[in-house]
Amino acid sequence: MNTIIGVIGTSEASDEESKTAEEVGREIARRKGTLVCGGLSGVMESACRGAKSEGGLTIGIIPGFNGSDANPYVDVPIITGIGEARNIIVVRSSDAIIAIGGSFGTLSEIAFALKLDIPIIGINTWEVSSNIKKATTPKEAVDLAFSLARPRS
Amino acid sequence: MNTIIGVIGTSEASDEESKTAEEVGREIARRKGTLVCGGLSGVMESACRGAKSEGGLTIGIIPGFNGSDANPYVDVPIITGIGEARNIIVVRSSDAIIAIGGSFGTLSEIAFALKLDIPIIGINTWEVSSNIKKATTPKEAVDLAFSLARPRS
Amino acid sequence: MNTIIGVIGTSEASDEESKTAEEVGREIARRKGTLVCGGLSGVMESACRGAKSEGGLTIGIIPGFNGSDANPYVDVPIITGIGEARNIIVVRSSDAIIAIGGSFGTLSEIAFALKLDIPIIGINTWEVSSNIKKATTPKEAVDLAFSLARPRS
Amino acid sequence: MNTIIGVIGTSEASDEESKTAEEVGREIARRKGTLVCGGLSGVMESACRGAKSEGGLTIGIIPGFNGSDANPYVDVPIITGIGEARNIIVVRSSDAIIAIGGSFGTLSEIAFALKLDIPIIGINTWEVSSNIKKATTPKEAVDLAFSLARPRS
Repeated sequence: MNTIIGVIGTSEASDEESKTAEEVGREIARRKGTLVCGGLSGVMESACRGAKSEGGLTIGIIPGFNGSDANPYVDVPIITGIGEARNIIVVRSSDAIIAIGGSFGTLSEIAFALKLDIPIIGINTWEVSSNIKKATTPKEAVDLAFSLARPRS
Repeated sequence: MNTIIGVIGTSEASDEESKTAEEVGREIARRKGTLVCGGLSGVMESACRGAKSEGGLTIGIIPGFNGSDANPYVDVPIITGIGEARNIIVVRSSDAIIAIGGSFGTLSEIAFALKLDIPIIGINTWEVSSNIKKATTPKEAVDLAFSLARPRS
Repeated sequence: MNTIIGVIGTSEASDEESKTAEEVGREIARRKGTLVCGGLSGVMESACRGAKSEGGLTIGIIPGFNGSDANPYVDVPIITGIGEARNIIVVRSSDAIIAIGGSFGTLSEIAFALKLDIPIIGINTWEVSSNIKKATTPKEAVDLAFSLARPRS
Repeated sequence: MNTIIGVIGTSEASDEESKTAEEVGREIARRKGTLVCGGLSGVMESACRGAKSEGGLTIGIIPGFNGSDANPYVDVPIITGIGEARNIIVVRSSDAIIAIGGSFGTLSEIAFALKLDIPIIGINTWEVSSNIKKATTPKEAVDLAFSLARPRS
């Protein structure tokens, strides 16, 4: 069964964060993982672009009502219409999560991951628990994500 | 862009409904559509099985908390944890919907589709509006679904 | 413990429906029930107005992001931000439900009530199941709602 | 219009946290505020008990499917059935929020409050932003909550 990796982070990413996210996306696709994210811009878009450049599958869990909210690298937009409440769906749907930078929306997702005991790897993100495994490079983060990914059954 | 077809119907399908759903799934995959459904058993499972037999992509929007709730033919389980409130996500995420038989859960989805003006095709299902296009065969239903599918932008 | 009665119906009510809803609200309040509804206009607003005229308590489960979406007779707006997915919360939170007229949104709520086995009384509404008890007057509907209300424990 | 104060915190409170929460509930009720919370045990139950001891109104936004999940001091259980996704509804429905201690669920709510710019006052809680106003006593926290409460229109 394919491993599903969630990528979370701000919709207004710095150049550095975008570069990191894109490489994370590429690494996920190279390992035949499916990328799940919030489907919008910034870290989400860069990660999806990276995944698509390697032929990966990308799912965007959209907060709003329109598929056109999805960034152009989302293969399947899941249109929730439930606003930020969709954050927990991104988290629950992931076998492991990689957080890149991020603001308060990302913090809510990290909190849910910690509450639900879903493995989470952080690159320059919120440091609110020692259960967030730190990584410094995209490759290290994705390696960790795949090795820690919980079995889905 | 790939067309996303929602398939809705009861989790306790008759043999006839299962056969219909499986052929609907096959037809969606043959046209390179992505199948979205509630991810559980009955009509949902048969449709996914059909789609996989033709190499299609299947997404299951799961009401509960566990990926293992998904039927074995779901490629990507979206684990919502929001119970039956996930019904509207199945509806919103579809460019067109095919309803096969169905009980009250299906009726709630039909109602949402009608409210949101999402094209819906019915095979032996609830007759609550003339906006539900009737089909008698899986092929006819899938043809209608692709021809009526709303553009996603 | 107070009995919680849900009132559902269209946001664009006819004069007749508004009058009925207002009297339903009054009757609920006279029996010391709490009124729960979707919090918007039409049947919802008329029911709240009736309840307040008799000193009742009114809760509005708002789909959007702003408390100002609530009609002026809502005491406590619950601001869900989850759009029409809030329909099932109105249903689940009710010990019994009264449906007055209604379009597809109301139909989705009726479907959820039938699925969840929550007692439902209808006045000129969708006839999709014999489990919808018919009433012809507001008083009859509210009497039925209180007598059928499920215990909450 | 009544002011709605959200009280958030862990379902497994220490004696100290329970005492604080109860007094916070009392202070809210003395100022004729409505208390909204997650409706379960711990900080939520103590706050509701305090509010009821002063004749206040208490609303519990329940994650599960049963009204019986609500603590005995909840007047109106809103039964969401959407699990932890209900956290954001607690936040959105509050004109101001008081956080007492708390674990990862509380952190998710704090994150949402910060994202949505809803005033938040903390007593021995997560320190993830200077926008969380610190209070040391229940009275100080409730005074701050009422003075910072956003207008609802």
